[in-house]
Amino acid sequence: MIEKKATTSVNINDLIASRWSGRAYDPDRPVSKEEIIPLLEAARWAPSCYGDQPWRFIVFDRRNDKTGWDNAFSCLSEGNQVWAVNAPVLILSIADTLFSRNGKSNRWAQYDTGAAAVSLCLQATDQGLMVHQMGGFNADRARELFGIPDQYIPMAMMAVGYQLPLDRIKGETRERELSDRQRHPLAHNFFEGRWGNAYKI
Amino acid sequence: MIEKKATTSVNINDLIASRWSGRAYDPDRPVSKEEIIPLLEAARWAPSCYGDQPWRFIVFDRRNDKTGWDNAFSCLSEGNQVWAVNAPVLILSIADTLFSRNGKSNRWAQYDTGAAAVSLCLQATDQGLMVHQMGGFNADRARELFGIPDQYIPMAMMAVGYQLPLDRIKGETRERELSDRQRHPLAHNFFEGRWGNAYKI
Repeated sequence: MIEKKATTSVNINDLIASRWSGRAYDPDRPVSKEEIIPLLEAARWAPSCYGDQPWRFIVFDRRNDKTGWDNAFSCLSEGNQVWAVNAPVLILSIADTLFSRNGKSNRWAQYDTGAAAVSLCLQATDQGLMVHQMGGFNADRARELFGIPDQYIPMAMMAVGYQLPLDRIKGETRERELSDRQRHPLAHNFFEGRWGNAYKI
Repeated sequence: MIEKKATTSVNINDLIASRWSGRAYDPDRPVSKEEIIPLLEAARWAPSCYGDQPWRFIVFDRRNDKTGWDNAFSCLSEGNQVWAVNAPVLILSIADTLFSRNGKSNRWAQYDTGAAAVSLCLQATDQGLMVHQMGGFNADRARELFGIPDQYIPMAMMAVGYQLPLDRIKGETRERELSDRQRHPLAHNFFEGRWGNAYKI
């Protein structure tokens, strides 16, 4: 995979620095069950409020279940379909809005599901796989197609696969895959002591 | 730190397997700015919808800002205060409910903030630090004390510090720190093709 490490003021863990969301998937390189299971295990062990584990994930594997994959793909926005068409696996992340312990509203459902999802992405990085999460999909359509009950909220469709070798990435996609990753300066999002007081390095 | 690796059906990345939420902090071992900054950098480089980076974090360092730390501590539930009293640093994670790009509602604000928060936790694991996220705190009080505007939602208060050496952990806390970590079986939260169809290993 193309290396695009985060530009940080200090060194951070290599796995975290190396994860990024590419778009150029290799359509000819499938992802086996043996490669998918560690991704799910990584998500499974994420932390959650009261240990409630409010996340659910549905895996769509084009090789084993073309109809399922096609249905998942049909939920994506047109802009995402252009590149996600080459991802051999799609995974839908879903948040359970109610605590399983008492049926009350879980205000950390989405927060914890996001934690599980990025754990999956980091594990993928460890395996040389690429994951790109997409908010651009029709959640209502996904709910209907896959029978997702009302108390659960479809959050993101994740494209999973291997990156296309660089010499096969062309045109605009190539430019985008090679462009620098961008983040706000640290002081924009991180404060000390009170709101708006930029964290001083 | 006590090692309590996740029990997984297959090997996963060591960092992800090793992260867990302890409670026995060493009150005599501060965390320096040099140790805090990589935690923030890890959060900063998390993925987000449209790259919006909806997370905000406020750091409260007891050594440098006792009033700020005391205020943050005062927001915690009594149950959490019992053990978090020994954490030298508290960090509040906050989600921006509106996209900065267009001011519209961002339905991935909490999801992405959860991703940034767990990235911080994983980086802490890498540094031998322990982070425990708490939902049990008074978000309204935090909003008032720290001047958090309405469009932002306080999500979790995170205790950050070094673990107390095992020989100094006593009684019930010791039992809890040494108990096994638990998760649902994989098939409970992970499906294939459609809702409720357990992922088969």
